[in-house]
Amino acid sequence: MTQPITPREQDFSRWYTDVIQAATLADYSPVKGCMVIRPYGYAIWERIREVLDRRIKETGHENAYFPLFIPKSLLAREAEHVEGFAKECAIVTHSRLKAVEGGVVPDPESKLEEELVVRPTSETIMYSMFAKWIASYRNLPLLINQWANVVRWEMRTRLFLRTTEFLWQEGHTAHETFEEAEAETHKMLGVYRELSEGTLAVPVIPGAKSDSEKFAGALKTYCIEAMMQDRKALQMGTSHNLGQNFAKAFDVKFQGRDGKLAHVWQTSWGVSTRLIGAVILMHSDDRGLVLPPRLAPIEGVIVPIWKDDSEKANVLRFAESVAASIVDHRVKIDDREQHKPGFKFFEWEKKGVPLRMEIGPRDVNEGKVVVVRRDTGAKTPVPAIELAHRFPALLEEIQEDLLRRAREFREAHMKDVDRYDDFRAFMEADSGFTRSHHCGGRECEAKIKDDTKATIRCLPLDGPRERGACIACGAPSERRAIFGKAY
Amino acid sequence: MTQPITPREQDFSRWYTDVIQAATLADYSPVKGCMVIRPYGYAIWERIREVLDRRIKETGHENAYFPLFIPKSLLAREAEHVEGFAKECAIVTHSRLKAVEGGVVPDPESKLEEELVVRPTSETIMYSMFAKWIASYRNLPLLINQWANVVRWEMRTRLFLRTTEFLWQEGHTAHETFEEAEAETHKMLGVYRELSEGTLAVPVIPGAKSDSEKFAGALKTYCIEAMMQDRKALQMGTSHNLGQNFAKAFDVKFQGRDGKLAHVWQTSWGVSTRLIGAVILMHSDDRGLVLPPRLAPIEGVIVPIWKDDSEKANVLRFAESVAASIVDHRVKIDDREQHKPGFKFFEWEKKGVPLRMEIGPRDVNEGKVVVVRRDTGAKTPVPAIELAHRFPALLEEIQEDLLRRAREFREAHMKDVDRYDDFRAFMEADSGFTRSHHCGGRECEAKIKDDTKATIRCLPLDGPRERGACIACGAPSERRAIFGKAY
Repeated sequence: MTQPITPREQDFSRWYTDVIQAATLADYSPVKGCMVIRPYGYAIWERIREVLDRRIKETGHENAYFPLFIPKSLLAREAEHVEGFAKECAIVTHSRLKAVEGGVVPDPESKLEEELVVRPTSETIMYSMFAKWIASYRNLPLLINQWANVVRWEMRTRLFLRTTEFLWQEGHTAHETFEEAEAETHKMLGVYRELSEGTLAVPVIPGAKSDSEKFAGALKTYCIEAMMQDRKALQMGTSHNLGQNFAKAFDVKFQGRDGKLAHVWQTSWGVSTRLIGAVILMHSDDRGLVLPPRLAPIEGVIVPIWKDDSEKANVLRFAESVAASIVDHRVKIDDREQHKPGFKFFEWEKKGVPLRMEIGPRDVNEGKVVVVRRDTGAKTPVPAIELAHRFPALLEEIQEDLLRRAREFREAHMKDVDRYDDFRAFMEADSGFTRSHHCGGRECEAKIKDDTKATIRCLPLDGPRERGACIACGAPSERRAIFGKAY
Repeated sequence: MTQPITPREQDFSRWYTDVIQAATLADYSPVKGCMVIRPYGYAIWERIREVLDRRIKETGHENAYFPLFIPKSLLAREAEHVEGFAKECAIVTHSRLKAVEGGVVPDPESKLEEELVVRPTSETIMYSMFAKWIASYRNLPLLINQWANVVRWEMRTRLFLRTTEFLWQEGHTAHETFEEAEAETHKMLGVYRELSEGTLAVPVIPGAKSDSEKFAGALKTYCIEAMMQDRKALQMGTSHNLGQNFAKAFDVKFQGRDGKLAHVWQTSWGVSTRLIGAVILMHSDDRGLVLPPRLAPIEGVIVPIWKDDSEKANVLRFAESVAASIVDHRVKIDDREQHKPGFKFFEWEKKGVPLRMEIGPRDVNEGKVVVVRRDTGAKTPVPAIELAHRFPALLEEIQEDLLRRAREFREAHMKDVDRYDDFRAFMEADSGFTRSHHCGGRECEAKIKDDTKATIRCLPLDGPRERGACIACGAPSERRAIFGKAY
């Protein structure tokens, strides 16, 4: 049960998996490429859902649910889209199993007339319905969101970061004009940024994807990109301006204010359970998971310490009054009999609970609680009567410190690099992100990736216009791109 | 957009579909047997989730997420289980599409070594993990719940009631003893009954399924059964005592308090989006949907009525103050310019909003609101200052009336029937449920179904012991079963 966590220095990738197992966030499943999200990991996803769902609704969107299966011909209707997803589809071909000697096989007689693809994303199935629902500008904007599972067949998988099945939300909207669609795309990118920085304490760079990294079928893909503590890049969320590509493929038309028929302008945007992977990679340490308080299923755990029954009664009574004083928070008293306090400290550390509160007989006498921060290990004795305001204040402090430290780390590992030799050395050493000029050419970008494994993470939205020469080919460039090695 | 609703007398089945379409709850999709749950329908599902999820957690269960796909061999490990589900499985056989002349086809080179079944239910995939997680009695009880989509291939489908894909929750637990598992099964059946009667206003009969209707692989299946307004039966939820069947198939063992290894005792239980179908069938009328207040996404709608701009300003100001006085409720002001009040009344009626509040210029002057009940059409003028307590009281009254009326309806259409001729006539006339003696034989039950289309809905848990003779074969019986025609 309690395998030691591999130190980061020794093997970062194993450390990541060890942290997940030690915190019981997830587990490998008997299905290749699919994982089991265990209760503690799922509770984190529920927190993300809760925070994000509220914002999605506040910004005028409504949840709905569309079929898991997409008829092959529907998926194929937008040419770029099917090309982008064809290589990673789970395909349903039969609808019955038949008993044979030694087991069961798909019943040949149940072969489907048309194969069904398990949704890798829902543009095609949703927009075939949008075509039915939208008739006039009065039906616009149509603002739909879906919480669902999706499947993209993966060869090399990694818990939370890349799995064949994952959970996500996908927003899909239709508008009267390009400008409205573009504004929606940016609005939702802003909501994602707010979630990432405000709740997950993961600072991000909002930007546009290069042509070769944009979503299959989109006009433009925007993203938020973060630097993990191994200085690699993780894409945290994307927001696509789909233009009229899908509207044309699915004949989604509306009668405009001018009485004329026109195709709608569309967007789609999503974040997934990958965000849990980001939080782990960003904040955790060699002792295990570190969770930002706003995301933590348990914000504080009280560990009562006693030697005999009379101490126990006293300590527990005090612990309960302490818990009652912070009743609006997610607090747990760990009064398990079978484990020693040291074991409990260790366990809640592995689970990343932001604050531990130790209460022994002496603390009861002195009317205080020893509060220990998970992120720094700092211990503070706090008078019990002050806990009602000190506890939330400490949580806030941790939340801010995690974000600030992550931001400082990123700034310390992001540099303007203008010479290709320096660029190669920088990437070779896994030094972080560069801000470098790029010509915008697909082939040139591919060459850089071949040479260095680095890709354009994004063209930052707030990057200044600045004339320069492409880091690889020397062609003229008007702004710097963020380069990095990506997960 | 506004097709009339077929009256129930004319065609009950079309009425049902019309109510759904008129309320924009769901729509047919391009995927055979699968539906789209539209925002208003999904909002009802979110209410169900919210209420039930809270109870599931209060009773000690934790949410988790397991893979959508089940390797064929895993599904086949429990013999009865695979037999029960083999005929309705969506089977994934390939992982890539390949472009060919005129379209795309599954790439033969991507054929899977072992086919994957899209989960029809998750016993097998979950218990393969339970075997890994459970070592000792200290790990028990293990109380897991999952909110997910499942797929059971259906030939004849009906919106909400029977669709190839549906949404549900499935609880899965493991215990030390048979007694604990049995207690859990009943506890969750109780939670379902509470949800059904307390929130959906659908009265149910808790009972045990006969052998031929029990879950594939279970020792015992319990259910709650309701009578819809066409006097047919709808199964609202099931709770299974799985005994040690799956534990043996998946080798889920624990070291007991006595130090010995033993197989765990298990349960599983679930309710689905079918519950939305039940609410529609139970309460709605020829004007459309009727929703019980506790389930309604919108509890009350305010329709302001004005003729000119000065009236409009007055009326809207008053409407907003009225809305503010019931701010803790789910209330909407329908201030759309393009529609007349009559149109709005009609629309919210179709959507089943429990209370409509009409406010015209005269109401503003008199400081009152005309409150109209959706279920009875009763109009009550309510002084605005009293609305804060009258509004929730009226909602409560509707909630109780709906449940009471449904209960009275069921009692009026449930009879003790002891002669097979009477039984056949009763079922022929679609008269409702009978309480009749049955011998318990599978073949005898099958014969009754052949003769009358009626099945044993359940052996009611609170039914008295009473000696009698089987309605069909005359063999001795010790209690009455509930018979009815089922959805």
